[in-house]
Amino acid sequence: MVQLHEIGRIHTPYIDTAPYQPVTDDLGVFKLILQEQYTSALQDVEKFRYIYVIYFLDRITPKKYYDQVSPPWAEGKQVGLFASRSPNRPNPIGLSIVEVKQIRGNVIYTSGLDVYDNTPLLDIKPYIQELDVKPDANYGWLQSDNEEDRDHLLLHIQGKPH
Amino acid sequence: MVQLHEIGRIHTPYIDTAPYQPVTDDLGVFKLILQEQYTSALQDVEKFRYIYVIYFLDRITPKKYYDQVSPPWAEGKQVGLFASRSPNRPNPIGLSIVEVKQIRGNVIYTSGLDVYDNTPLLDIKPYIQELDVKPDANYGWLQSDNEEDRDHLLLHIQGKPH
Repeated sequence: MVQLHEIGRIHTPYIDTAPYQPVTDDLGVFKLILQEQYTSALQDVEKFRYIYVIYFLDRITPKKYYDQVSPPWAEGKQVGLFASRSPNRPNPIGLSIVEVKQIRGNVIYTSGLDVYDNTPLLDIKPYIQELDVKPDANYGWLQSDNEEDRDHLLLHIQGKPH
Repeated sequence: MVQLHEIGRIHTPYIDTAPYQPVTDDLGVFKLILQEQYTSALQDVEKFRYIYVIYFLDRITPKKYYDQVSPPWAEGKQVGLFASRSPNRPNPIGLSIVEVKQIRGNVIYTSGLDVYDNTPLLDIKPYIQELDVKPDANYGWLQSDNEEDRDHLLLHIQGKPH
């Protein structure tokens, strides 16, 4: 058993309902509020344009998962859970890349991310050009000659209703 | 308290000592061995060139951290812990991007990653071109007009002795 603890909370406009559409910044305020003892550990974070946000998906219900995800819109296509970003995973760890807008004390204002308000925050790491940008990354099973199909699939893999 | 559990183990050539140099594939075999019940959840993972590997840094000793990291080689520069990739963090969660070389049953053969052999695996997520590649990402506090300095700093932020 691995025991972790929250270091703060993520605050979003999504109080009771999941996001209805791709997350854009004009939907409201998105911020990470860290526990106060971590304030000085945030020094220099604002020098990064992007950060990784790692969190615990505590609102996943039911707390179970399936080995295979079978999106009905994909004509019966089944993909393995680990080839998906489904939040229903053995360990419901969420990972998002957000833009750092401003840091004030223990609060990081960010670009949008599609998690429920009050989601427990586990870690923050700098997203660094040379380490994290893989220009030759592909689209995996989302690959399609039809750009519209692919964009549609991307919404699904992000769990974004549309 | 957040409770997670391992879904497998990461196997690397680093049995007793940390990597001595930047990780390259010719240093040995790197593989993720998942528990057998997760084998079918790996379907389609091999269609992705890159995946995120999320793991628990169980060999961190001492199990403590400092708010600020002060690399002696950086002329007294201190940076906040969350602006670093130091493994000594409130939650010792590791995050690496690796290339998928081959999948055989419950084993994923990957490009190199600098963790100790037998590190507990927590999650695998597809690294997807459109979602995860941020071409405008910067270098944060590692920014330097001197390319050699920056490369040197990059080795440090990755925790790679050199």
